[in-house]
Amino acid sequence: MSRHVIVRTSTHVPQQILDGLAEAGSSTVHEADGRRGSLDPAIRPIHTGARTAGSAVTVSCHPGDNLMIHAAVEQVRPGDVVVVTTTSPSTDGMLGDLLATSLRARGAIGVIIDAGVRDVAELREMGFPVWARAISTQGTVKASPGSVNVPIVVGGQPIRPGDAVIADDDGVVVIPHERAAEVLEAARRRIADEAAKRERLAAGELGLDMYQLRPLLERLGVVYVDEP
Amino acid sequence: MSRHVIVRTSTHVPQQILDGLAEAGSSTVHEADGRRGSLDPAIRPIHTGARTAGSAVTVSCHPGDNLMIHAAVEQVRPGDVVVVTTTSPSTDGMLGDLLATSLRARGAIGVIIDAGVRDVAELREMGFPVWARAISTQGTVKASPGSVNVPIVVGGQPIRPGDAVIADDDGVVVIPHERAAEVLEAARRRIADEAAKRERLAAGELGLDMYQLRPLLERLGVVYVDEP
Amino acid sequence: MSRHVIVRTSTHVPQQILDGLAEAGSSTVHEADGRRGSLDPAIRPIHTGARTAGSAVTVSCHPGDNLMIHAAVEQVRPGDVVVVTTTSPSTDGMLGDLLATSLRARGAIGVIIDAGVRDVAELREMGFPVWARAISTQGTVKASPGSVNVPIVVGGQPIRPGDAVIADDDGVVVIPHERAAEVLEAARRRIADEAAKRERLAAGELGLDMYQLRPLLERLGVVYVDEP
Amino acid sequence: MSRHVIVRTSTHVPQQILDGLAEAGSSTVHEADGRRGSLDPAIRPIHTGARTAGSAVTVSCHPGDNLMIHAAVEQVRPGDVVVVTTTSPSTDGMLGDLLATSLRARGAIGVIIDAGVRDVAELREMGFPVWARAISTQGTVKASPGSVNVPIVVGGQPIRPGDAVIADDDGVVVIPHERAAEVLEAARRRIADEAAKRERLAAGELGLDMYQLRPLLERLGVVYVDEP
Amino acid sequence: MSRHVIVRTSTHVPQQILDGLAEAGSSTVHEADGRRGSLDPAIRPIHTGARTAGSAVTVSCHPGDNLMIHAAVEQVRPGDVVVVTTTSPSTDGMLGDLLATSLRARGAIGVIIDAGVRDVAELREMGFPVWARAISTQGTVKASPGSVNVPIVVGGQPIRPGDAVIADDDGVVVIPHERAAEVLEAARRRIADEAAKRERLAAGELGLDMYQLRPLLERLGVVYVDEP
Amino acid sequence: MSRHVIVRTSTHVPQQILDGLAEAGSSTVHEADGRRGSLDPAIRPIHTGARTAGSAVTVSCHPGDNLMIHAAVEQVRPGDVVVVTTTSPSTDGMLGDLLATSLRARGAIGVIIDAGVRDVAELREMGFPVWARAISTQGTVKASPGSVNVPIVVGGQPIRPGDAVIADDDGVVVIPHERAAEVLEAARRRIADEAAKRERLAAGELGLDMYQLRPLLERLGVVYVDEP
Repeated sequence: MSRHVIVRTSTHVPQQILDGLAEAGSSTVHEADGRRGSLDPAIRPIHTGARTAGSAVTVSCHPGDNLMIHAAVEQVRPGDVVVVTTTSPSTDGMLGDLLATSLRARGAIGVIIDAGVRDVAELREMGFPVWARAISTQGTVKASPGSVNVPIVVGGQPIRPGDAVIADDDGVVVIPHERAAEVLEAARRRIADEAAKRERLAAGELGLDMYQLRPLLERLGVVYVDEP
Repeated sequence: MSRHVIVRTSTHVPQQILDGLAEAGSSTVHEADGRRGSLDPAIRPIHTGARTAGSAVTVSCHPGDNLMIHAAVEQVRPGDVVVVTTTSPSTDGMLGDLLATSLRARGAIGVIIDAGVRDVAELREMGFPVWARAISTQGTVKASPGSVNVPIVVGGQPIRPGDAVIADDDGVVVIPHERAAEVLEAARRRIADEAAKRERLAAGELGLDMYQLRPLLERLGVVYVDEP
Repeated sequence: MSRHVIVRTSTHVPQQILDGLAEAGSSTVHEADGRRGSLDPAIRPIHTGARTAGSAVTVSCHPGDNLMIHAAVEQVRPGDVVVVTTTSPSTDGMLGDLLATSLRARGAIGVIIDAGVRDVAELREMGFPVWARAISTQGTVKASPGSVNVPIVVGGQPIRPGDAVIADDDGVVVIPHERAAEVLEAARRRIADEAAKRERLAAGELGLDMYQLRPLLERLGVVYVDEP
Repeated sequence: MSRHVIVRTSTHVPQQILDGLAEAGSSTVHEADGRRGSLDPAIRPIHTGARTAGSAVTVSCHPGDNLMIHAAVEQVRPGDVVVVTTTSPSTDGMLGDLLATSLRARGAIGVIIDAGVRDVAELREMGFPVWARAISTQGTVKASPGSVNVPIVVGGQPIRPGDAVIADDDGVVVIPHERAAEVLEAARRRIADEAAKRERLAAGELGLDMYQLRPLLERLGVVYVDEP
Repeated sequence: MSRHVIVRTSTHVPQQILDGLAEAGSSTVHEADGRRGSLDPAIRPIHTGARTAGSAVTVSCHPGDNLMIHAAVEQVRPGDVVVVTTTSPSTDGMLGDLLATSLRARGAIGVIIDAGVRDVAELREMGFPVWARAISTQGTVKASPGSVNVPIVVGGQPIRPGDAVIADDDGVVVIPHERAAEVLEAARRRIADEAAKRERLAAGELGLDMYQLRPLLERLGVVYVDEP
Repeated sequence: MSRHVIVRTSTHVPQQILDGLAEAGSSTVHEADGRRGSLDPAIRPIHTGARTAGSAVTVSCHPGDNLMIHAAVEQVRPGDVVVVTTTSPSTDGMLGDLLATSLRARGAIGVIIDAGVRDVAELREMGFPVWARAISTQGTVKASPGSVNVPIVVGGQPIRPGDAVIADDDGVVVIPHERAAEVLEAARRRIADEAAKRERLAAGELGLDMYQLRPLLERLGVVYVDEP
């Protein structure tokens, strides 16, 4: 079988679950999944204030070559997030406003890219959110093969087609599609729980007391001393 | 004596001096102290436009562990800035909106962290300023001991409890508490002096003339040539 | 002849060409010049939304020393962009609001600096655009010689005095002054061409079809498979 | 089910295949598998001249904590390579001569670690090969849970328990255990093929001719010119 | 008082303690001091196999300027290690074989430098050990002031004149001079203890049993499962 | 004219000058040329002890693509050094023992590459010296155009075909071919001068006295103080 494939898949996370995950936010979802799934924090949003969650269309490109993103557009379904990596590290601007226009026309709601992006002023105007490792004027060619909808590693995390990708100002988190529903439930419990805690902390209660950390400090040998 | 201590201290810089230092700004204060005290420029504000100065509550944590920030909350006094480092490099999100709520309830006015932070949208909404090396969804545990209010190194600079920390869009500067008053005076002289210089430069006078740099260029062997 | 020179030159790109290049934007100009001239993407704008193009006044400084920027001010002509590098890597804040005031008084419209800058809040207020590798409180001295208007390398690209420098939210691109006019023409053709393409993509046409990439994918051995 | 597990597995690659892969070397094996499986080149051997291949025992640790490496020792079978990552980036020295002694006693033939190592002089003396991101004196604690023999990402590549890990002076390559046999065959064909090519190139034949690249250059528009 | 001083000091660690610390090695000493004092692992030996310990002569230089190392030579006493930092990050080659010759003539036994070094082939031939952040051909000037024998930060650790610096293939560790004697004692106990442990581990005993870690794993919720 | 060219040139530096520059060494040559021409110190030799100087054959490649190195082989003349860069940053292993065999057959004496190399054990055995930014198993394709013998930037320095490249354990330095002869003369004067200085320093004379730096320290305001 060929090394380079474009996989037609229908794996995805139901929209109402994605909506819930987006609302919960990346950091909460990460905690709710047992502190898993955080992409490298060097992958940052190009605009402040975006918040999204979608099923991943995965793309593996040769460095300096965005051919396979074009191939990926056809595999996008409304509500998807396109997740791009390169076979070796690159900061080139692999996506600009033309590709974003095309992706949006197919229903994509955002892009995560472990490389560079450009036309960021235009993307901001379009309201098309992108999380990227770099912003770069450097353009790419369309000459080398790659794959679409195969498992990839992005920002140190494995991502498979259809996995849930949650992205906002804190960064990007991936949740395996099989776990998305239960993680959402856990996230909601966590949010409810945090609301109560926030109130207590705002009223001046100490985390040392609320989380009962004083015995732990003592057990760990941390001692209190007065300034000499 | 234990390696891990929480020190109760009353060392701090008087509020009116802190107010003056905040107004002067980090770069001016750095110059006024003989170009000392600049933290690594990789420690950046998470929001634009914040400007603050406070006495440091110092925290040393194990990487991936924010237990000691909880312990530090109790040591905060109104107007303090909490300054956090880890015993080896980390980008994990060691502080989010819950801890910020708790810190604010105790009177803390900001956080400097030589690691990561998260919930940045919520922190922005709260108007709680943080300067950090990274923004990261990655959470931490509460399992390992550390210290509060001991001398630490943050962003390459030594910081002791009670030292003045000045932070704004340019970054973060630390001034030893013993020198804070004299540095403020020097900063004010500098500001007055710069106002006059700014006017002259705005009027077209050259720095070469204003600072009398022409003889220096000549002494250094820099020569003028016309394009061939 | 001395190693350190300040060259008086009249080489520059005509203003109407610079205006056209600024309007086209850095990424488009880069493509129009055959994908050349992109500076290291680590050199970023300190404010969002700036867009400029000017003829370069080049400056080579010793690290931690901004003496030669002062010497460069005198060589600035209205519409110029000052482009600064150091003889070894530095992140120090080599330029602040005073130097910016002086540069603006001489007609400079922006600065590109392969090092650090400070007073960024003041620079934002002045509306003076700077692209820099770092924002740093760390100040510099005026003690070591360097050169003005000699060929330098900035962010990995060679830049000569008078070359066109185009900078915006995507980063910075340099075009040799001899090629500026033809690159502008190519950029304008490209913009016209992209407008048509954008419309087709927005209407749902695939890049695979518009760019006729399907035969290429096939030739490269990329195969379509259905999810098992 | 618990998030943190130690999996007892018998998945592994037969020894004679591992021997063949070690002999072929990491770069050849990477080519033979269609240019896949290269770990981040920042993971380097701590001694020159080591060359090994083994089935992976995978370990996921909290940063700054080597508890799970101790748990992994028990899962080692003769000929295995222990592959360690941390849940967020770390350079701490997670393994020294004591752990290496223990690993060797159980039959481990090497370690790959996406973090730090120490006691490198002793490890060199022992002849125990390690590939690591850092060499660091910084020690770790034994306080936080993790997992053994679960799929992990190391140096940007997914590695599962029992996968073949090939490491030498060029770095580290992983081959999924299911593909190990066919990759070895392809590697052997490649080695035979390269021997013939090496001879022709040594005799002065050009790659341009041997690989028939001249038509490609022409098709790509590369032209020959004589120096003006 | 001047900002820039050369301090004449007699603070140092007795030779027999330094000899013991060198013999124990950097990693063991670091553990013996409660896992403190590790310099950034990016500071590496330029030759393999060196092992040294000395009292620190500290030097703070302007970046790109080695004037103060010349001033430091006069303050060296036999058995000292010269420890150099710059006021902002630099990789320039601040020290070569001439300065090393001068340092050795005064009795210095090594150099730690949080910047660059050059003439490394000559230094290797001389048998003069250096630990540095970089090896660089880039030379420096002698134009800017700095200080000798003041407290500095090197590789993230505070170092004062007379502190014990232990350096070998694992990197560099600093021990405050007041604690040097007790740390040596603790190191020796640790070495004795490790010899016994090494034997048990070499005989096949597991760290899980020797350190009694099984109850900890259970308490942390780590569970054993058989491969499905 | 095409963007991508292979230039046939006869520009080179005479062999006896190259021999002299190699003997002088990279750091001395850099000083002799007024402290110019140092490549980024991240470009390191893959073996210790190599020392070479040659005329540059320059190569500009697409990242992840070594097609143009094959084209460059034909342009090599005995004694040349092949100098390779990529149009955007890459660490891929662009050159291995086959290409080295081919290069050596044409008379090349070394390679400088602002990217990665592999087969380093074989290259060491061959005695073929390479200076590279990375050692990487990651292979490349032959699909995208580039240029041979055009001016390029490597490690931050401009290099033109025929320029002298001097490389050894300290790193790599480039000297414009027009200046090679005079730089060699200056290097020889410097070596003679340094021999005398080395003797004086070895005899215990201080650099402070030999270079007459005491008045400079005084003028700069550096003061001597005794430890309090």
